[in-house]
Amino acid sequence: MLYHRNELKSEIREKPRGGEGNATFLHLAEGKGAVQKYTNLLAEITLPPGASIGPHPHTEDLEFYIILEGEGKVNDNGTEKNVTKGDVMITGNGETHSISNTGNAPLVFHAVIIKE
Amino acid sequence: MLYHRNELKSEIREKPRGGEGNATFLHLAEGKGAVQKYTNLLAEITLPPGASIGPHPHTEDLEFYIILEGEGKVNDNGTEKNVTKGDVMITGNGETHSISNTGNAPLVFHAVIIKE
Repeated sequence: MLYHRNELKSEIREKPRGGEGNATFLHLAEGKGAVQKYTNLLAEITLPPGASIGPHPHTEDLEFYIILEGEGKVNDNGTEKNVTKGDVMITGNGETHSISNTGNAPLVFHAVIIKE
Repeated sequence: MLYHRNELKSEIREKPRGGEGNATFLHLAEGKGAVQKYTNLLAEITLPPGASIGPHPHTEDLEFYIILEGEGKVNDNGTEKNVTKGDVMITGNGETHSISNTGNAPLVFHAVIIKE
């Protein structure tokens, strides 16, 4: 099944997970059968400068962040690290993460949450 | 766990799945514990102009292609379609797919294969 970008559903989440500002979630395949079976989220997320997704744990699933554009900072289960294009963060087994845009351009990344 | 792009392992596959030319697989998190448990592949794949990944089925897992750059053509279980940035193809339940670079620049996409 092929979904063209202009068919995808975009959603704005305010102060996501207690973070700052708004995040735009472009759902790459929300709610389709096989996708829903395997994933809790498959999205391209855009954070404008200064925006963030607040800290939250992943206990029952596994999340990948794959940075596509921009400059940011993550908290990787207690440790702050800088991220840029091509960096990958993996969070599961009860670990906590957060991400913020520390640059002057949008921070864009893929988020994939795979169910247990 | 954070992996910086320059730490990731790159692999060249010749005539992938019987396709044309070479594909470069940048493994975003190969062989790590939780990743291996949930996924068969998490990679950024680059096809130069004219290169392709040949047709193959997915019966025991589910694959997402998320197009990042370039212009290509996919065969989506028997139907040929054009793809460009932001398009998403999902293949599972025994469906077959292939992908080729029909443009003049690299075709770059994320490939995520989630285990049954």
